[in-house]
Amino acid sequence: MHFLQLAQGHVQRLFAYAQQGQQLFHTQVRIARDEKHDALMYPRESAALEHFIRLGRERLIAEEERFHGLLLTCGVFKVKHVDVLAQAVVVSVNQFDSFFTCLATVTPMAFSERVSRLKSSLIREILAAAQRPEVMSFAGGLPAETMLPKVEWDEMPLSLGQYGMSEGEPALREALAAEARALGLECEASQVLVVSGSQQTLDLAAKLYLDKGTEILLEAPTYLAALQIFQLFGADCLTVPQEADGPNLAQLRKRLEQHRPAFIYLIPTFQNPSAVRYSEAKRAAVAALLDEFGVTLIEDEPYRELTFDGGSAKPIAARLRKASWIYTGTVSKTLLPGLRVGYLIASPDLFPHLLKLKQSADLHTNRIGQWQALQWIGSQKYQQHLSELRDFYRQRRDAFQLALEMHFTDLAEWNMPQGGLFFWLTLKRPLDTRTLLDEALANDVAFMPGEPFFPEPDKHHGHLRLNFSHIDPARLDEGLKRLAAVVRRAQMERAA
Amino acid sequence: MHFLQLAQGHVQRLFAYAQQGQQLFHTQVRIARDEKHDALMYPRESAALEHFIRLGRERLIAEEERFHGLLLTCGVFKVKHVDVLAQAVVVSVNQFDSFFTCLATVTPMAFSERVSRLKSSLIREILAAAQRPEVMSFAGGLPAETMLPKVEWDEMPLSLGQYGMSEGEPALREALAAEARALGLECEASQVLVVSGSQQTLDLAAKLYLDKGTEILLEAPTYLAALQIFQLFGADCLTVPQEADGPNLAQLRKRLEQHRPAFIYLIPTFQNPSAVRYSEAKRAAVAALLDEFGVTLIEDEPYRELTFDGGSAKPIAARLRKASWIYTGTVSKTLLPGLRVGYLIASPDLFPHLLKLKQSADLHTNRIGQWQALQWIGSQKYQQHLSELRDFYRQRRDAFQLALEMHFTDLAEWNMPQGGLFFWLTLKRPLDTRTLLDEALANDVAFMPGEPFFPEPDKHHGHLRLNFSHIDPARLDEGLKRLAAVVRRAQMERAA
Repeated sequence: MHFLQLAQGHVQRLFAYAQQGQQLFHTQVRIARDEKHDALMYPRESAALEHFIRLGRERLIAEEERFHGLLLTCGVFKVKHVDVLAQAVVVSVNQFDSFFTCLATVTPMAFSERVSRLKSSLIREILAAAQRPEVMSFAGGLPAETMLPKVEWDEMPLSLGQYGMSEGEPALREALAAEARALGLECEASQVLVVSGSQQTLDLAAKLYLDKGTEILLEAPTYLAALQIFQLFGADCLTVPQEADGPNLAQLRKRLEQHRPAFIYLIPTFQNPSAVRYSEAKRAAVAALLDEFGVTLIEDEPYRELTFDGGSAKPIAARLRKASWIYTGTVSKTLLPGLRVGYLIASPDLFPHLLKLKQSADLHTNRIGQWQALQWIGSQKYQQHLSELRDFYRQRRDAFQLALEMHFTDLAEWNMPQGGLFFWLTLKRPLDTRTLLDEALANDVAFMPGEPFFPEPDKHHGHLRLNFSHIDPARLDEGLKRLAAVVRRAQMERAA
Repeated sequence: MHFLQLAQGHVQRLFAYAQQGQQLFHTQVRIARDEKHDALMYPRESAALEHFIRLGRERLIAEEERFHGLLLTCGVFKVKHVDVLAQAVVVSVNQFDSFFTCLATVTPMAFSERVSRLKSSLIREILAAAQRPEVMSFAGGLPAETMLPKVEWDEMPLSLGQYGMSEGEPALREALAAEARALGLECEASQVLVVSGSQQTLDLAAKLYLDKGTEILLEAPTYLAALQIFQLFGADCLTVPQEADGPNLAQLRKRLEQHRPAFIYLIPTFQNPSAVRYSEAKRAAVAALLDEFGVTLIEDEPYRELTFDGGSAKPIAARLRKASWIYTGTVSKTLLPGLRVGYLIASPDLFPHLLKLKQSADLHTNRIGQWQALQWIGSQKYQQHLSELRDFYRQRRDAFQLALEMHFTDLAEWNMPQGGLFFWLTLKRPLDTRTLLDEALANDVAFMPGEPFFPEPDKHHGHLRLNFSHIDPARLDEGLKRLAAVVRRAQMERAA
């Protein structure tokens, strides 16, 4: 067995293909003599191979230098295995027949260290699979198309075609600040930063706070895309268990006593995925704890306006007296996600940094979408639209609840969501719900497994996230019936 | 003299204010006993202070633990100096009078390491100063407002309000790939990623490639905002001198022989700031060198279409045979920057990574702007508009050249740009042009000093970047006359 330094371009291409899920077994890789990347071979030994994979690429480079005398130029290889995590490609060398297996590493100059943590998005893959029109999908989080409001563009001034301010349009910032103040969040327009969808807030916050190994605190479960970007930037993700009315406070205190997280990331209102809305008491208690320990709050509120019982609770950021905070929202769930207009409001100590990070990310948010958002925010027609939206989604929620009771009462437990877009089911007999996906899709049903919403997926089996806003009501019953059958079969198989 | 651990929030606030350029001398900082962030004082010594600044914050934390016995709680401080680079705030403690000066560091949990490299944007500050209507500004790079095309929105389908694909709109990707193929760049729509302005390409590339200390290769000078984001992500910026027809090839080979940069970032057509367009020969030679050394190319082409002599040269990416590449462009210079629609086209090995990074950054680019861009790309009306744009800017360039010859012939040398938006002046008697800014602004003239376009500004004194596209022609002559007078006075003062 040998270790082999493949040409950088080759290895990157192999990783790319492997991460796309392509089958690489026996793919041929040609290393040409003239590439200035001659293959480097090491003596065969299976244990050594594993050892070097564990050591990682830095040590491998050092080892290569030691073995420099063994430099060979090689011809054609067959890929046996690509280990994306270890950034290793194991190939067999043709001219030595299959007795020789080789390890190639990406050279330190190839990609950044963080790219090794760049996961393929399960949501993306499921949504792709759910594109087939026959699939009944509970997987996404899309607004219902019928409820996208008709928007007018006639009045938009031509001058919005010019470059704009990184902060966002002044009038929109004023309107957003006024909305936030109405919720109890004391702020000025100068604290408002318009972003390209609230996903960008997570990107900016990650840049502001995260180095490799930085501890942060999250709800368990938490928003999958937040988890992914925080992990991409190297965060060490600590969690607090989510309960029906918000986080477990004793656990939260314990985490804060034992750690100094750079920030805590919370979705207190109709959380994605758990649908939990924090109680008044827990909002107050969380704020007090963050003040006590001086931990920055990132409060993500995309679902706040989608309330079905009329309830509205003051943001946690509005209850802080000392800790720094970022409050973020979007028009994606209430107006048009295609505009990509979100916003953050930050305590004054954080704002200048976030502004500069925004500027370096994309200069400013598109002004067309900002102008459209401004036509709605704070207007009477927006209130009217929100009211219709709540009625529409409440009816879908109610129909979903009935269908769930029909098909899932024996299989799972759940709380009826008072807002948002999701039901969060907990199986009475837990299993890894990711293993259900293939059969569900084979039955033309798509759903989101619960595991990826936890930093430690394998410790949290047995949840399903079901979106109720987007499914055709005529197919709801059939879809849940089939999904229940898939769960039931899997449980019987495991019991057998 | 003492070292003091200020409360995290205080220190962050001080940094924020300092980076905003606020004068902090004698600002009062109150540390309350009840904040659980008691002040930590160390014995006075000026040399020790510098020593600890050099050590950086990690060692300081260790030192704090050693001196834990000296923990004090303090009252009110006056800020003497904020050293953003060292993340240090030097304050004097009131109750000990001015004999005591303290050093406060941000605790490791505060911001990410990269934020210490987050520079305030000189462009931003100059543009802010140039907002006054009386200022004649050569500083920005804005399209002329009179040349923003009138766009229609009537036909846009409502369905574009829904979430879209991270890759971008399929029809737009097809159109962009077709345009690129017409330039000689072999590619498929599957290699096209629509981004939120080509600035986002730089963000995605930085995430893909850069760790702290990663070597990259740039033209000197290069695009300021690229330099800033690459430095933010920790890049070690190597440079190749720019000549009138492209980079110095001997220097380029030398760099590639001695280093293994993660990528080379080039703006081969009407570069910002130097206005250089690479010759055919240099394009071919650069491509051959990148293939030879296997170095990834990032080719940034915002100005390609703004050609005044009709010349068009095949992209360097189109000449590569082995090396990986990212080619990026935008509609910001030819259509409407306010749409925030740009694109990248990448070799297939890089695309899947860039797509995931795009998804985690902002899910997808706004669909409204994408739809508008699609109405133009590849159309007859776009060709007509480009033709008018070129005529318009050529006339402005010609008028600017005449005015420059009038006022700057004795002061500077320059090449007449054959495209783009800028003149790049080299003073015959170099001085740090940043020192001219205050007086220029006092005379109601704004320009961009050349120094920040180099990774090592202090080694590159004596250039000015002058935008010719945006100034009111009626004020051009007066503006350049005043600017020349400012330069002349400064040189006389220095000679005296």
